[in-house]
Amino acid sequence: MKINGTPYRSVWRPTEDPQSIRIFDQTRFPWEIDILELRDVHAVMHVIRSMQVRGAPLIGAVAAYGLVFALQNDPSNSALHKAAEELISTRPTAINLRWAIERLVTHLQNIPPEERVSAGYQEADAICDEDVKVNEAIGEYGLELIREIWERKGKQGRVNLLTHCNAGWIATVDWGTALAPIYMAHDAGIPVHVWVDETRPRDQGSLLTAWELGSHGVPHTVIVDNAGGHFMQTGDVDMVIVGTDRVTAQGDVANKIGTYLKALAAKDNNIPFWVALPSSTIDWRVKDGVKDIPIEERSSNEVLFMHGITDSGDISRVRIAPEHSPAANPAFDVTPARLVTGLITERGRCDASEAGLKSLFPEE
Amino acid sequence: MKINGTPYRSVWRPTEDPQSIRIFDQTRFPWEIDILELRDVHAVMHVIRSMQVRGAPLIGAVAAYGLVFALQNDPSNSALHKAAEELISTRPTAINLRWAIERLVTHLQNIPPEERVSAGYQEADAICDEDVKVNEAIGEYGLELIREIWERKGKQGRVNLLTHCNAGWIATVDWGTALAPIYMAHDAGIPVHVWVDETRPRDQGSLLTAWELGSHGVPHTVIVDNAGGHFMQTGDVDMVIVGTDRVTAQGDVANKIGTYLKALAAKDNNIPFWVALPSSTIDWRVKDGVKDIPIEERSSNEVLFMHGITDSGDISRVRIAPEHSPAANPAFDVTPARLVTGLITERGRCDASEAGLKSLFPEE
Repeated sequence: MKINGTPYRSVWRPTEDPQSIRIFDQTRFPWEIDILELRDVHAVMHVIRSMQVRGAPLIGAVAAYGLVFALQNDPSNSALHKAAEELISTRPTAINLRWAIERLVTHLQNIPPEERVSAGYQEADAICDEDVKVNEAIGEYGLELIREIWERKGKQGRVNLLTHCNAGWIATVDWGTALAPIYMAHDAGIPVHVWVDETRPRDQGSLLTAWELGSHGVPHTVIVDNAGGHFMQTGDVDMVIVGTDRVTAQGDVANKIGTYLKALAAKDNNIPFWVALPSSTIDWRVKDGVKDIPIEERSSNEVLFMHGITDSGDISRVRIAPEHSPAANPAFDVTPARLVTGLITERGRCDASEAGLKSLFPEE
Repeated sequence: MKINGTPYRSVWRPTEDPQSIRIFDQTRFPWEIDILELRDVHAVMHVIRSMQVRGAPLIGAVAAYGLVFALQNDPSNSALHKAAEELISTRPTAINLRWAIERLVTHLQNIPPEERVSAGYQEADAICDEDVKVNEAIGEYGLELIREIWERKGKQGRVNLLTHCNAGWIATVDWGTALAPIYMAHDAGIPVHVWVDETRPRDQGSLLTAWELGSHGVPHTVIVDNAGGHFMQTGDVDMVIVGTDRVTAQGDVANKIGTYLKALAAKDNNIPFWVALPSSTIDWRVKDGVKDIPIEERSSNEVLFMHGITDSGDISRVRIAPEHSPAANPAFDVTPARLVTGLITERGRCDASEAGLKSLFPEE
């Protein structure tokens, strides 16, 4: 996608410096477009933990390069496995991270150590290129859903979508998952409008999704996380579409904290609730998401402080709770499959169920 | 309740200046304890609109004094009705405001104009004194519920309550509605713990409820509005209790935006969802809350900016969305009666239904 007219991916390996990658510092969006240069596995682990790079698919891609960086000094099996383990432990909930690392480990352990770095770069590049294609396919399958709504409405008014958090192009290598269908619908001339959940505590909705949509010219309105249910009750939401950090083999969906509440409201108002994901987000080893997906607990400061920009243009924070009040900060919740209308993958749409997933991925 | 050891009500008429009232500037809590002096109906309308005074029961009490102030220059019927109308229009959703004003008008219009000011003060004082008693009764009926949970848990661990927004003593004249049972349970030695929803956009939870509970020594944890559903899924919430701005004759509940989402999650997890209210909050004229309760739309700046205190101690704001992104800001939503376990009133508990309400209020 483009920033001020220039096309970008969310991670890239510059031709003039191919032993490194570039990413955006996503904690500075939308106030600053800061590009970070990474050439070291520890730097990669740091930007994942600090959420300077975030979004399940993008974390996977960036971590893959991190693993290659780790092999530059020591391409041995033990270095490979140690770095893989450390990288996987940086964020516990998103499964794409483990998927990307395991894919690289499987690929590299059969290659002589001295060839691992160059083979690793190729494989990490392949992960990125595939992510773009996968998301484009998700966009096309999701576009069909938006087009159906538009036709059902007699092509009157607009199609109102609601999304939570950021599953846009900067959460992936390009296109996004949940936002890909929206970009395509907008480009196809369907008048879409997006309710953008703020997504406390880190405000990925109001900071990232609103910025992405605005940059692409997609009409949208920022709302607090509390408001989505009300707009569903008043008939102002035609469809909810979100991304995910992990989908279980039975279709339960881990996603940013608060997703479950929106799924409940969608169900209560007979509004379709769709989840867009690359198949690398599916954890075939886990069935019951509520019981078995580990939920990352992040710093209470994310709750107790709000980051933004001051009237004088500085990026700053304000405390929003009394000094002696503690806070809890689970970063994700799990939406049970029964609340999910369906999944949109690179192979098409399916029910959020074991049978649905198996129909698209019979090899698993 | 007490602030730093000194007992206060949320509105009072000082003996040394009985033609005026004092309130706290609730937009400064918890950073500053600012007491405002009001002696003019326009000042009263201003503090209600600006939410320097807020909380449905307290708005009613303060507005009642505002009406008396309006009569000081002109106690005629036309001045009475004009001021009544203007005061009622300051906030459209909370019904206690209309209830208090109509009570005063009914009382005063049968009294000779020259006696209306002193009679008005007496009646407004009576509204305040009754509010305190009513909330105390609500506290006692609600305490029974908490005690039942404590006993059902075999007096092990703690009773985990979740509340949204602020229905504490500063939302009423004293005691609070939803928080009254919690204060009483704490004082009775039941180990309670409260999950405090931040309550975006104005953060009445993290700013006011957390401060109230902390001042009284009640254990609590601030969470973002997105997190409550997750804690219900993990079994960490025994009961939800909230206040309300208007209850319809069939038991639908208007309350701060986001309440509906918590009610859905409570239902999905078989957790009791109780609403605490003085009977002045019941709108006997309205049945279907989702269709017929007007929802106040407030400034988009409440969504686009967050207020808090800077690291250097100044009350300030930060912008949390791109400059060109619009925002929508409905201040309330309606929780249908089917999601409400029951209502706690000054006359006891009842089903959230026409029959339930009639069983406690047969005269209506």
